[in-house]
Amino acid sequence: MPIKRVTILGTGLIGTSLGLALRSHGFAGEIAGWDPDPAELNAALDCGAVHFASSDAVAEARSSDVTLLCGPVFTILEWMDRLAPVLKPGQLVTDVGSVKGALVERARGRYNLAESAGFLPGHPMAGKEVSGAANADANLFDSAAWLFTETEESRGMHPASRAIADEWRGWTGKLNCWVLDLDAERHDVLCAWVSHLPQFMSTALSALLQDEFAAKDELLPIGGRALREMTRLGASPYSMWRDVAHTNTEAIAASLLALEQRLAHLRENLKTPELREEFERANLFRFIPPASKR
Amino acid sequence: MPIKRVTILGTGLIGTSLGLALRSHGFAGEIAGWDPDPAELNAALDCGAVHFASSDAVAEARSSDVTLLCGPVFTILEWMDRLAPVLKPGQLVTDVGSVKGALVERARGRYNLAESAGFLPGHPMAGKEVSGAANADANLFDSAAWLFTETEESRGMHPASRAIADEWRGWTGKLNCWVLDLDAERHDVLCAWVSHLPQFMSTALSALLQDEFAAKDELLPIGGRALREMTRLGASPYSMWRDVAHTNTEAIAASLLALEQRLAHLRENLKTPELREEFERANLFRFIPPASKR
Repeated sequence: MPIKRVTILGTGLIGTSLGLALRSHGFAGEIAGWDPDPAELNAALDCGAVHFASSDAVAEARSSDVTLLCGPVFTILEWMDRLAPVLKPGQLVTDVGSVKGALVERARGRYNLAESAGFLPGHPMAGKEVSGAANADANLFDSAAWLFTETEESRGMHPASRAIADEWRGWTGKLNCWVLDLDAERHDVLCAWVSHLPQFMSTALSALLQDEFAAKDELLPIGGRALREMTRLGASPYSMWRDVAHTNTEAIAASLLALEQRLAHLRENLKTPELREEFERANLFRFIPPASKR
Repeated sequence: MPIKRVTILGTGLIGTSLGLALRSHGFAGEIAGWDPDPAELNAALDCGAVHFASSDAVAEARSSDVTLLCGPVFTILEWMDRLAPVLKPGQLVTDVGSVKGALVERARGRYNLAESAGFLPGHPMAGKEVSGAANADANLFDSAAWLFTETEESRGMHPASRAIADEWRGWTGKLNCWVLDLDAERHDVLCAWVSHLPQFMSTALSALLQDEFAAKDELLPIGGRALREMTRLGASPYSMWRDVAHTNTEAIAASLLALEQRLAHLRENLKTPELREEFERANLFRFIPPASKR
């Protein structure tokens, strides 16, 4: 029972990239797209990420095996509410939101029941600092982790939805992702450290340098690769990160506070042997990307 | 009066890369190398960065037109002391240290006098998080800024040294660097923001993640490009950064404190409209690398 039809709700950077990736990896079914911004939807259609541009998202979801919610977290939550009453067993809703606790909570009592569609919470650890279908890339998910935070309820979704869910999980593997299951709460804490904290650091540094330099110092370009890397995410859109900040507040605040303390410790020890210890501890850190884990 | 002989004191990453870059850009003179570590010196010789491996740095400098001081800042200061009494007008000492105030101060009364060699303070805004001749790269300086912090004294160095200094400045341009003059004090403040702060941020994040995860969580690899970029400099060697921390302490501490305050501001406003303002400010920041300035 293969997935015959997918609807992508939100054809921005991730949704459009996902359509492109599915098609370039041999997905033979139909892909419908919908977006609140007609320009984004047309761009997704033009680049071939979707076969159809739909003007009725709900009708499209009703006729699809899989509905992919590809907006910011609050938008995903809204769509979960709207679609739950109109979908049925044998259909699946899944998402690409980078916070999972709020979504798992919202699914409870709305999805994964005897008479409802299935909801499979998950997302790829992939993105860019620029948004929109114009920046979409069929290879965006290559070698990325794709995390699923299944619950007791999602594991027990209707068998007809479960078959679709398992097939969808298989597709994330075919996109060359490292597919991984973890608890939603643990997911949100982990992502605060490895994804949300780096974003807020880059935003803070970029905003700081904007205030210190942009208007009054023409010498900023002396910076090198390090500055480019550390400020790249400063270009990330508020519209997406607001929702992350609102739905993973506690874990993000904890990681920010820990970083502030660490920076203060460095600042207070620029001339003491503690500086060596911090550099040596940092030297021990080895980030091994997922590609080499598979 | 072309530069006929250059001595590179310190054939690590920068010294060896500089030898390779000079040769690949058509420098026809002789290049001698010296390093306290015989393995580093041999590596520089093997890859062709230097023509000769010297066992007597002082003798080598005495017979060279240009002596390049390529170690950490304190090592540069030591060599400045040792070489000043044995060199003479018509010879030039220059450096690649990323702090300039301390060097300019040390040069005073030792160099750029009627009977002494010239000292030209400068450095390329280039580097890597890994050290050693084995990581050298002839293209390391391509499109980088090369900063000079000349002083009244250096501008008035003996004409025979001045000719060498001007020729050396020309070589940094031939290496495809954006050659720029600025005041040493301003240089140190600017570099604290655009170079030293990013390094200490990355060290702090790497050390923090090492404590939080490395020993107890196998899930770190879920991180993506952002994490890789933000922690890349965590691998940087203490040996080099200790000297920077000791010689540019005030400016680095000020930039760290400003960042701590900015992070705290974000943390306290994860759910307020202030978050939007910070993202919008960060979005305005545009780092334009030096290549497009030339």
